[in-house]
Amino acid sequence: MAENTIAAAFYRGDRTFSVETKVVEAPKPGEVAVRTAYCGICGTDIHVYHGNMDARVGFERVIGHEMSGVVEALGDGVEGLTLGQKVVVRPLDHCGDCPACNAGHTHVCHNLKFLGLDTDGAFQEIWNVPHHTIHALPEDMRLDHAALIEPVAVACHDVRMSELKEGEDVVVIGGGPIGVLVAMVAREAGGNVVISEVNENRLDIATKLGFDTVNPIKQDLVATINERTGDKGADVVFEVSGSQPGVNAMTEVAATRGRIVMVAIHAKKPEVDMFRFFWRELKLLGARVYEAADYEKAIQLVASGAIDSETVITDISPLSDIQQAFEALDSSPTALKSLIQVGA
Amino acid sequence: MAENTIAAAFYRGDRTFSVETKVVEAPKPGEVAVRTAYCGICGTDIHVYHGNMDARVGFERVIGHEMSGVVEALGDGVEGLTLGQKVVVRPLDHCGDCPACNAGHTHVCHNLKFLGLDTDGAFQEIWNVPHHTIHALPEDMRLDHAALIEPVAVACHDVRMSELKEGEDVVVIGGGPIGVLVAMVAREAGGNVVISEVNENRLDIATKLGFDTVNPIKQDLVATINERTGDKGADVVFEVSGSQPGVNAMTEVAATRGRIVMVAIHAKKPEVDMFRFFWRELKLLGARVYEAADYEKAIQLVASGAIDSETVITDISPLSDIQQAFEALDSSPTALKSLIQVGA
Repeated sequence: MAENTIAAAFYRGDRTFSVETKVVEAPKPGEVAVRTAYCGICGTDIHVYHGNMDARVGFERVIGHEMSGVVEALGDGVEGLTLGQKVVVRPLDHCGDCPACNAGHTHVCHNLKFLGLDTDGAFQEIWNVPHHTIHALPEDMRLDHAALIEPVAVACHDVRMSELKEGEDVVVIGGGPIGVLVAMVAREAGGNVVISEVNENRLDIATKLGFDTVNPIKQDLVATINERTGDKGADVVFEVSGSQPGVNAMTEVAATRGRIVMVAIHAKKPEVDMFRFFWRELKLLGARVYEAADYEKAIQLVASGAIDSETVITDISPLSDIQQAFEALDSSPTALKSLIQVGA
Repeated sequence: MAENTIAAAFYRGDRTFSVETKVVEAPKPGEVAVRTAYCGICGTDIHVYHGNMDARVGFERVIGHEMSGVVEALGDGVEGLTLGQKVVVRPLDHCGDCPACNAGHTHVCHNLKFLGLDTDGAFQEIWNVPHHTIHALPEDMRLDHAALIEPVAVACHDVRMSELKEGEDVVVIGGGPIGVLVAMVAREAGGNVVISEVNENRLDIATKLGFDTVNPIKQDLVATINERTGDKGADVVFEVSGSQPGVNAMTEVAATRGRIVMVAIHAKKPEVDMFRFFWRELKLLGARVYEAADYEKAIQLVASGAIDSETVITDISPLSDIQQAFEALDSSPTALKSLIQVGA
């Protein structure tokens, strides 16, 4: 490879990635060039792979956003970072001039650019990003573990929005990667967590991670939660399944005045029991991505081991095998989080 | 009428009330006998009249709960009230021993008895109720106006749950009696209120009460609200319509991080835009009946004139005409709140 080129995986449509070389661009003023170490495959990346987001990402895009790396170069005007420093990127770039930004909610900016979807992302050896997206890591943090910080930050945001208090009863509906991370963060916050999941492989992983589980196809979820809580129900429910049965369950298992956090993306409008919201004075809280505080919390939790990174990360592939890694993850019943090792 | 009998209106099924005499019962220990002055007709009473609640209320029931009156007699152990004192009744009797009561949310008790539905109510000259349901009124309050306190307390609860702050933009979807009261309480709390309503007579009343209005059949509600708010949307939305179009509108007009209060009773599960909840981090807040603080606020608002009682109360009929009053209200396009004058 020539000195001024790097390897990058381009999404070319039709479930295909092509690893090619591209010329390195110097970071612009206010940007940081990050040398990518690892980048996880997100559910959103699988959506891209399936072709569901072609209109948004096109066929010249390098995706990837669940990344870790080290500072490679600094654009003009960037201070407070040193070359070689371990960092992660909070991949949100806001406009600064919409009603959401004006209200201080930049993470849900009306014109939000998601780095790695709306711009090129981290499935490349060097990634230039705005300085404000950088979070520094502890020196001794493993960079494979650090690739979990982005999805852990999602979970931290969800749990923070729920205002979960120590000792409260929690049900996580859906035990995929995000559901399991939400469960871990909720447990760390003092919640008594039950995971509801229909996939036996995922139930095994949840059990291995120390969680009580229910398979609602085999067992009455509502009766189980009522029995555990003296007919109170769950103080906090996370709907992570994106399914109509999950939406049915979320109102049924919630305690009076319980908080339900909408984590999942429901592409179709589900039927929702609005009477139950009225009758039990339930709260529904939409929660999207993360804010800076969630990233800082996620860094702490990965550093402390509250997140069991070794169990969550089920496989690591080199960038040259990204195509096989997507194919495997898409068909695997046992994988939880697959990482791509982008750096050498 | 013999001295120990009173007039009472019994619901006999099949859209029929029968005004009969019944023997006065002395208040039991801990009860207060209230001489009813006025009692409003609630939407729930119309449901009873339509036969929709026959299984719950039966055919021996005196209904009515939006009442005002004076203390007639005190049961053993009741202190702090004087005979002749003006009062209203907060018609909720809780069990004291369910998860909701244990958490301090007695108004949404899992075994709640609603006085005037699950027990006899106020369409009778003397009504015996538990002491804890009584709220004392200012001496100079008009008792016809005081019959509005119960529905105003519903509105006060809704607005309190919304955490509405001064200067926030508010949309009330549905301009019936409760919608109009919610709008008045929200305006008093400093909200910039728009009422969305499809019925032209109700729109006229809302306009008369000084509100900006939108008829969403004739005018684009979302475009109107976006124009008024610089594309921000409404900070607080009250869904009082109980309709699928209302549920569609509630997520469309809400600002990022907007709060939507579910006031209406949706007997059928509507389709709800869960993606919008996620995308804009919306909050949905179920709100049912009221707590003691809401009654005290409602008493203040009726006393101060913040509630325009003269406009809200559109007609008053004697108890002997209760049948005609229900028939008229059921078919009237212009009535807002109909009262029954129960006392002499």
